[in-house]
Amino acid sequence: MTAFVPADDGWQGRVRTSFARQQAMATLGITLDHLAPGEVHLGVSYQQSLTQQHGFLHAGILATMADSACGYAAFSLMPDGAGVLSIEFKINLMAPAKGERFVARARVVRPGRTITVCEADVVAIDGGAEKVVATMLATIMAIRGRPDVEG
Amino acid sequence: MTAFVPADDGWQGRVRTSFARQQAMATLGITLDHLAPGEVHLGVSYQQSLTQQHGFLHAGILATMADSACGYAAFSLMPDGAGVLSIEFKINLMAPAKGERFVARARVVRPGRTITVCEADVVAIDGGAEKVVATMLATIMAIRGRPDVEG
Amino acid sequence: MTAFVPADDGWQGRVRTSFARQQAMATLGITLDHLAPGEVHLGVSYQQSLTQQHGFLHAGILATMADSACGYAAFSLMPDGAGVLSIEFKINLMAPAKGERFVARARVVRPGRTITVCEADVVAIDGGAEKVVATMLATIMAIRGRPDVEG
Amino acid sequence: MTAFVPADDGWQGRVRTSFARQQAMATLGITLDHLAPGEVHLGVSYQQSLTQQHGFLHAGILATMADSACGYAAFSLMPDGAGVLSIEFKINLMAPAKGERFVARARVVRPGRTITVCEADVVAIDGGAEKVVATMLATIMAIRGRPDVEG
Repeated sequence: MTAFVPADDGWQGRVRTSFARQQAMATLGITLDHLAPGEVHLGVSYQQSLTQQHGFLHAGILATMADSACGYAAFSLMPDGAGVLSIEFKINLMAPAKGERFVARARVVRPGRTITVCEADVVAIDGGAEKVVATMLATIMAIRGRPDVEG
Repeated sequence: MTAFVPADDGWQGRVRTSFARQQAMATLGITLDHLAPGEVHLGVSYQQSLTQQHGFLHAGILATMADSACGYAAFSLMPDGAGVLSIEFKINLMAPAKGERFVARARVVRPGRTITVCEADVVAIDGGAEKVVATMLATIMAIRGRPDVEG
Repeated sequence: MTAFVPADDGWQGRVRTSFARQQAMATLGITLDHLAPGEVHLGVSYQQSLTQQHGFLHAGILATMADSACGYAAFSLMPDGAGVLSIEFKINLMAPAKGERFVARARVVRPGRTITVCEADVVAIDGGAEKVVATMLATIMAIRGRPDVEG
Repeated sequence: MTAFVPADDGWQGRVRTSFARQQAMATLGITLDHLAPGEVHLGVSYQQSLTQQHGFLHAGILATMADSACGYAAFSLMPDGAGVLSIEFKINLMAPAKGERFVARARVVRPGRTITVCEADVVAIDGGAEKVVATMLATIMAIRGRPDVEG
């Protein structure tokens, strides 16, 4: 594991401000649980309103949380003024999303000026025990000079 | 394009019943817009409550819709009593999700007894014009003999 | 389907020159079978020397061919002087790679200044009949101003 | 990290026998460098004959090696008589494949009766230093009762 050095002092504020602007996070009840350079954890509690047909959390909700976690892990290392966009992600659903709470733990695997690669594990927490239910591999892009895609 | 033949007469009912049990669909306002053997379209209207930081629809919401569309395209060809689970999916986000309405059009690429591969395009509809904003390639599994994973 | 317009008149020459420099293609016996703006077909004949343990063509050989096909489909639309690199690809192996000849048919799904998304189908040809054995979704990048990554 | 327990005593022999039957491995000069339950390393030395247009090892060769490494990591935990097939894989190419030797290190992330998920990192070794140049996330399937797909 490499320790990452943020590009500017304001990285924490930039991530928190951008996260707060993602209205989907508030709507789904996803919270920012941990923030470090190149590392972001987002969490959500079980809600019947977000389930698929068997009563498990919908894979898409796990993907939404893991995608934002990957994006902000990458964004934490980008310079001031950059915008962050997901180019693509792939997620493997490895076990039914049963549990009380779910946490997506994303980390930068390879930072870059334009392209950053991130991984995220999504764990289900149930009665204190943790189980990995999904894993994501994502490609994130830094956008510069586009005022409509900043933050 | 091959025309697919459903495994049983009740395929439409099975898909509609399972879709109705996905509480995440109702919560997000995702509707079942088209259903044919091996082909499912799901749609959602723009909602500020589902946006990312630049005001576009969150990539995870597109992924949620495309994942369910792929799952039900596969499920439409499965025999009665089978359960459907996503093993994994990959999605490329190709343009900002700007528009009035978004539709995920999924189709089976290769049906199988256990594994079915599906593709989905997500289009943004704006003032009558359509633009592809994302494309998904997904692997879906048929589950048999597990009462907790039926439908 | 959109018809793509190449960025310069020399696109055919640029693709053929770069393909000829990929020594892996000659080593594996992969040939450039079709070239159009945003569209490239590469082919390889069955060789026991390229098989996996069951005697089918190795998935990695299909991936090598499809990756180059996607890269050159994207490269055909790039301006003179750009270099082409694969950022990532995902491939689904849908049927055993049995046959006399295999062709990867790649096409640009969404061209872009920096990022281009491509799809490829790999078909097996056996006794005149065709079967899709794999499908790829790939993200390709245009590199500018790096003399070590030109073409 | 979990320690995996193989399903039968003959796991090492089964993996080595199947690997030896992959003629593509010998053709490309890929060797089996490390074998443990749920963990396989394959290696290949730099060869100009396997390069892409800029003189780096072709991404498809990295993918071939990583795919086999993932497959055998999964296969090491399968019961006697099972066959192993890749359903799909995704690979991110994170840096040019420059170096003297390349090693794909695969490990099982989630074993299963039918579906096993594996990860692999591909490192380039140059003058004693290591650099991760690619990472793969793969879905592997155990096949039973098909004599043409055994091992």
